[in-house]
Amino acid sequence: MRLSRYFLPILKENPREAEIVSHRLMLRAGMLRQQGQGSFSWLPMGKRVLDKVCNIIREEQDRAGAQEILMPTIQSAELWRESGRYDAYGKEMLRIQDRHDREMLFGPTNEEMVTDIFRSYVKSYKDLPLNLYHIQWKYRDEVRPRFGVMRSREFLMKDAYSFDIDFESARAAYYRMFVSYLRTFDRVGMKAIPMKADTGPIGGDLSHEFIILAETGESAVFCHRDFLSMDVPGVDVNYSDDASIAAIVDAWTTPYAATEEMHDEATWSAVSEGEQVSARGIEVGHIFHFGDKYSAPMGATVTGPDGKEHAVSMGSYGIGPSRLIAAIIEASHDENGIIWPEAVAPFDLSLINMKVGDAACDSACDDIYTQLTNAGVDVLYDDTDQRAGGKFATADLIGLPWQVIVGPRGVAAGEAEIKNRKTGERETLPLANVVARLRKNA
Amino acid sequence: MRLSRYFLPILKENPREAEIVSHRLMLRAGMLRQQGQGSFSWLPMGKRVLDKVCNIIREEQDRAGAQEILMPTIQSAELWRESGRYDAYGKEMLRIQDRHDREMLFGPTNEEMVTDIFRSYVKSYKDLPLNLYHIQWKYRDEVRPRFGVMRSREFLMKDAYSFDIDFESARAAYYRMFVSYLRTFDRVGMKAIPMKADTGPIGGDLSHEFIILAETGESAVFCHRDFLSMDVPGVDVNYSDDASIAAIVDAWTTPYAATEEMHDEATWSAVSEGEQVSARGIEVGHIFHFGDKYSAPMGATVTGPDGKEHAVSMGSYGIGPSRLIAAIIEASHDENGIIWPEAVAPFDLSLINMKVGDAACDSACDDIYTQLTNAGVDVLYDDTDQRAGGKFATADLIGLPWQVIVGPRGVAAGEAEIKNRKTGERETLPLANVVARLRKNA
Repeated sequence: MRLSRYFLPILKENPREAEIVSHRLMLRAGMLRQQGQGSFSWLPMGKRVLDKVCNIIREEQDRAGAQEILMPTIQSAELWRESGRYDAYGKEMLRIQDRHDREMLFGPTNEEMVTDIFRSYVKSYKDLPLNLYHIQWKYRDEVRPRFGVMRSREFLMKDAYSFDIDFESARAAYYRMFVSYLRTFDRVGMKAIPMKADTGPIGGDLSHEFIILAETGESAVFCHRDFLSMDVPGVDVNYSDDASIAAIVDAWTTPYAATEEMHDEATWSAVSEGEQVSARGIEVGHIFHFGDKYSAPMGATVTGPDGKEHAVSMGSYGIGPSRLIAAIIEASHDENGIIWPEAVAPFDLSLINMKVGDAACDSACDDIYTQLTNAGVDVLYDDTDQRAGGKFATADLIGLPWQVIVGPRGVAAGEAEIKNRKTGERETLPLANVVARLRKNA
Repeated sequence: MRLSRYFLPILKENPREAEIVSHRLMLRAGMLRQQGQGSFSWLPMGKRVLDKVCNIIREEQDRAGAQEILMPTIQSAELWRESGRYDAYGKEMLRIQDRHDREMLFGPTNEEMVTDIFRSYVKSYKDLPLNLYHIQWKYRDEVRPRFGVMRSREFLMKDAYSFDIDFESARAAYYRMFVSYLRTFDRVGMKAIPMKADTGPIGGDLSHEFIILAETGESAVFCHRDFLSMDVPGVDVNYSDDASIAAIVDAWTTPYAATEEMHDEATWSAVSEGEQVSARGIEVGHIFHFGDKYSAPMGATVTGPDGKEHAVSMGSYGIGPSRLIAAIIEASHDENGIIWPEAVAPFDLSLINMKVGDAACDSACDDIYTQLTNAGVDVLYDDTDQRAGGKFATADLIGLPWQVIVGPRGVAAGEAEIKNRKTGERETLPLANVVARLRKNA
């Protein structure tokens, strides 16, 4: 993509309304536009990141056996009365009346609707296990939305729902999602640590939040140093082997890890001081087993092998892609801007022409641009007439993993410079080698 | 995908609520679930088609130079007051109040919001032309939603908006979208005919509806037979050459074509009778040049080369992907079910194991399934214990382009049968040749 034709409105100043670094950087880097309180448009650069993150989530949901559907944003109040949540849910639910004065709502979550889909079609234990997910806009009418897409009113959410015949199968379904989440966060370039979460009246221990460590995190977290070096299951993980999946979960839940809310000083003090990591964290995923909380009141039952009707045992599994993007930036930036992990970077590299209009520079850049593009590398080519200093600042701000810098002096010597955005390392190399070098790395 | 693990709730009976064939077939083929009046969930099979259609739309928008963004569904009333449409828009607009009693609405379209984005950032004619699009859920509170996703209340829409310095550039932008639409509908396997549409108070002739011919179409249309054999511009179409784009538009707007609304008997009668096609059609796209209708009241201006401020000249370009899917089915089905064009088929083929449990059939099917999958062919493998007749009916109903039928007698003879869903042609061939045969065709 040529920057001269790309809609990338870079802001020079820090926007007043942005309280945290991810919000600030997303606005400055032309990823987002704030449309109102807790409401955002994703501009082309932001949309690219959103798509990359959603695709990774999708691939890992599919790999773990979940199936993608797409439920509407607007739901009927009737459905929520069946579960008792229409009255119980507070003012965060955006309630709406249509032209016939029917009560509706903008879904803050989808347990009721997916349970309704399930009960309409599935009648036998033979059709289980089943896990349905969608990636859809949700709305929560926060009193005080803030922190950009970290806590907005309208937000994108991947929510999956599992249906099983009994607790044991439901736990296996839960474990599959647990492992899928480990892989998802690893693939977007983040270390996420599963931490026990409150199960409230449901009880048991099947509720985990996945927390990314970041200095600017919203809450204090405590974990064993072991987490920082634990291996995430590879692409060959076998989701049809319940025992091996359970072993992975076991390994990832044995060392101490707790959010402030669930922190237990006594257990913590048993961890040797050198192994203690006290940090701040951002929740990017939550998985929760809730049994028959919705299936029982809503009559979502299947005939079991015993010929009897069983209310299905359910769990739900959420990741907010928009929130996750903000968390990635909180965890990966410096004073000059964003540092994208390669898997979610909107483009693979910035190609910087230091002197547009100079025939040699233009021709060298055109060559590199064409060859890299043909090699499947996504290049953002800065062919604007901005001065070089401004181009460097923009490239650092938007944070693509690599920068290729082509200037008149270098071109005269037959050379270009490449810079790694994360390490800052620079390397000068023959123009003829640029494509081969970055085809491998980018 | 193995059907035994796939959530595909086939309905044996015609659902009472479905008035037209696409609605009926989408419900029966397990693509959709009706959640309420004019509200639908897309089940896994439907979601796959939706994704394929959206990706084709996206590729052709990008190719024509449009850039993808994503605006929120909920908009502030304030913005719509600026254009005067908040009061002018009738009861179809879903109006909402938040917890602070602020007036909001679920966007039925996005002219105001995209104009607001534009005016926030773009100040100079040098940044034009610009075309921004998104694919987002819209809501129109129809009095009587009907015909499934053909006319639902919540629906997906691709809407693009072009911004130009003057009428001539705006017309060139309009022409690019015109050509992009020709290519889009061609790629989803449909013949869509552009027909002049009403421009109302805007005037001029830059408004076209794209109409798919289908016996069950919603309105009468009249066109010259030439349209049925006109070539759609290829992938090498040069969008940066205004003259060649204009020539394509010229060719596609010269023969007579009109919807009932715009039909002119006098001009029509000048078309020789043998060349007249009177048919029924379904609108699947609409493009419209509206000049400064929004930019003037909303102050979306740029500095021109003359140093003066100019309200930008705009157009909007819509395709409803969900409606388009229904239209494809209306145009392409038979008494047994859907007949998917290859480009939008949810899978490439049905692999039918006539006798699951028979070792030879299972092994032959497993082989074919593995090899085709490895060759990048999307196979839906019917490995359920349904009887063969039911499997054939399901395969015809869901309408994948090819069926591979493996039964005990064939396997004993080392053979399988393949059937083309569209033509009904059957061919018996050696098991060993199945993969090579379908890798080429599917």
